Amino acid sequence: MSLEHRKVKKQIQFRDEQGNALSGRKINVKQTKHSFLFGCGAFDFMPYVLGGDESFKPITDSWLDIFNYGTLPFYWGNFEPEEGKPHTEQLMKTAKYLKDKGVRVKGHPLCWHTVCADWLMKYDNDTILKKQLERIDREVTGFKGVIDMWDVINEVVIMPIFDKYDNAVTRICKDKGRVGLIKEVFERAHRNNPDAVLLLNDFDTSINYEILVDGCLNAGVPISAIGIQSHQHQGYWGREKVEEVLERFSSFGLPIHFTENTLISGELMPPHIVDLNDWQVDEWPSTPEGEERQAREVEEIYRILFDHPLVEAITSWDYRDGAWLKAPSGFLHKDGTKKPSYDILKKLIKEEWWTDTEVMTDEQGRAEVYAFKGDYSLSSGDIQAGVTLTDDDPVSVVLK
Amino acid sequence: MSLEHRKVKKQIQFRDEQGNALSGRKINVKQTKHSFLFGCGAFDFMPYVLGGDESFKPITDSWLDIFNYGTLPFYWGNFEPEEGKPHTEQLMKTAKYLKDKGVRVKGHPLCWHTVCADWLMKYDNDTILKKQLERIDREVTGFKGVIDMWDVINEVVIMPIFDKYDNAVTRICKDKGRVGLIKEVFERAHRNNPDAVLLLNDFDTSINYEILVDGCLNAGVPISAIGIQSHQHQGYWGREKVEEVLERFSSFGLPIHFTENTLISGELMPPHIVDLNDWQVDEWPSTPEGEERQAREVEEIYRILFDHPLVEAITSWDYRDGAWLKAPSGFLHKDGTKKPSYDILKKLIKEEWWTDTEVMTDEQGRAEVYAFKGDYSLSSGDIQAGVTLTDDDPVSVVLK
Repeated sequence: MSLEHRKVKKQIQFRDEQGNALSGRKINVKQTKHSFLFGCGAFDFMPYVLGGDESFKPITDSWLDIFNYGTLPFYWGNFEPEEGKPHTEQLMKTAKYLKDKGVRVKGHPLCWHTVCADWLMKYDNDTILKKQLERIDREVTGFKGVIDMWDVINEVVIMPIFDKYDNAVTRICKDKGRVGLIKEVFERAHRNNPDAVLLLNDFDTSINYEILVDGCLNAGVPISAIGIQSHQHQGYWGREKVEEVLERFSSFGLPIHFTENTLISGELMPPHIVDLNDWQVDEWPSTPEGEERQAREVEEIYRILFDHPLVEAITSWDYRDGAWLKAPSGFLHKDGTKKPSYDILKKLIKEEWWTDTEVMTDEQGRAEVYAFKGDYSLSSGDIQAGVTLTDDDPVSVVLK
Repeated sequence: MSLEHRKVKKQIQFRDEQGNALSGRKINVKQTKHSFLFGCGAFDFMPYVLGGDESFKPITDSWLDIFNYGTLPFYWGNFEPEEGKPHTEQLMKTAKYLKDKGVRVKGHPLCWHTVCADWLMKYDNDTILKKQLERIDREVTGFKGVIDMWDVINEVVIMPIFDKYDNAVTRICKDKGRVGLIKEVFERAHRNNPDAVLLLNDFDTSINYEILVDGCLNAGVPISAIGIQSHQHQGYWGREKVEEVLERFSSFGLPIHFTENTLISGELMPPHIVDLNDWQVDEWPSTPEGEERQAREVEEIYRILFDHPLVEAITSWDYRDGAWLKAPSGFLHKDGTKKPSYDILKKLIKEEWWTDTEVMTDEQGRAEVYAFKGDYSLSSGDIQAGVTLTDDDPVSVVLK
């Protein structure tokens, strides 16, 4: 893996504040942030930010040590359990906290048939759709500038045929059809924030989802990136499937986000389970062998995904064991201690794919910087500049 | 089954040539043709029409006795085996023959990866697409007025992943994507004949095809009717599946055509066969028990389909046993004698769902006619009129 596409090769002209070329000087090139979005569920930030519970501090600190991108929960049923009383403030506070830490935040999701608001069901379908679109107006406009990335609609392949329980969103999806509903919600989100990154997201990686994306794009739906879930509670997909999925979905030429990745460090969920939510256990222990396996699998899948030119984000779902389905799915044990998967991922993100080097300028004060795309601190002695390096165009930098 | 949606209840004012109301007269109401399209593969007409081979006459006569709608083959590889030398004349002659007999003709198909022209493969993809679209121009324009109904593109769900052999159409479908290619070929066909009935046709009746249709409609593809294949060499779908397919595809509100129906009267093809073309046998005999079963199944599926308000055409694929795959799939034995399935279908189409009645006019010369939609001869004594009855609007008819 050359990872050329993840790097810049940039001619930089270094000067001091007086405009003098910094000739023959050693320049320290220290990366401060990745352009690539290394993400994780940021649900654990909420109790810390909202309650100031210091016991969460080590957890959020280690999170911030490797991730630059977090997903916050906007499940309608939890966000607005009573009509007209949304938890906007809690989410805003947490999102701003993350933003201040340099973390890009995504809201998940604006429309979904699961964890849907029950109070919607008393309305007729036209009213449900109207309220769904107004909900999108409220969140996308209200959080603009803090959250500019949304999983607009989730799991549409199954949405109109989902029959485990009645819910308002399945009703309107049956009415409008899949592409019809996607079109409505995306257009509404786009209108409210034309610069937002808007994702379609699904766990179905089959030809169904391919055809759905194809139809949406031909219907002019403003999809910014294709979201692919990869919850692997039933076992790691393996290199072949990961590459096959990438190949099929890259045919659209759109950025690909792995939005919900799970690899577990305990016993696997049996293969006969179709809806992962059906696997309800009292305990799901992490095991030493499982943790070694999880670390190997995390390393392999991150390497494959980071190597693929269209992938621009990977989000691991659970940060800590025992969250969704009580699975041993995190980078931390339940008690907050780090697992081998944490160490290997940190090694990849902050060492192997991280640039911390020095260059010498020539007589004209120029040097070539070969570095992973991202934010940098360039310094020489006691003068410094912060720059973002994302392309190969020559640039002039003043250190002061 | 009331079949109300297949009938008219029409107030008719009867007059003679002088404008006098025909009061208190008995009017014979004789149906001459169905509005519903009862179709069949019309491939057997070609040797008869082209070669005048009289041995085919009994076959074509019995075909014309029940069907008003026929499919003619436009497989590119057979239609134009050598580039620039299409078999236009043969097809035109046969199509015109059928048209003169009052038969509606459909061309099948304009774009398909199977039986594709091999000579296309020497061109690059842009050229292949150009030739595909020019082929559509040529056929749709050239046959306009004789053939105004086309299976525009066939089996797109599998098209870009079809890997049994290389072919030109799979190549361009990979390039353009499913919906992209469908859009191009439909727009081209529509532009050449804006009044033509244009079908998308597939054997895949799963959610894949549903999502494909959904995407196409939202992308503005001018699909006139949804074509559903139902080759049941591996056994009759049964009422439940037929109804389930109808329910799913009726959500689009478009007319539904069962385009390729097969029910066989011999041993069933084993269930492990995925591509029916893989079942190559020397002999596939029709059996007496099989023929009774086939007749029962034909009756049931035709009843279900005729009962559904959105279905407007049913085409049985093979007219005579021993055609595709040598299957005992016809209404006639190989020797041309009729099978029980022929008799039951004729009974449905020409007796049970056929109107041959009489009405008495009142003092003002009016009578109400309750009849299956179609063409009629209305007569009284030696005066007569031919009319088409398709709606309940009152009408005035002059017998002469």
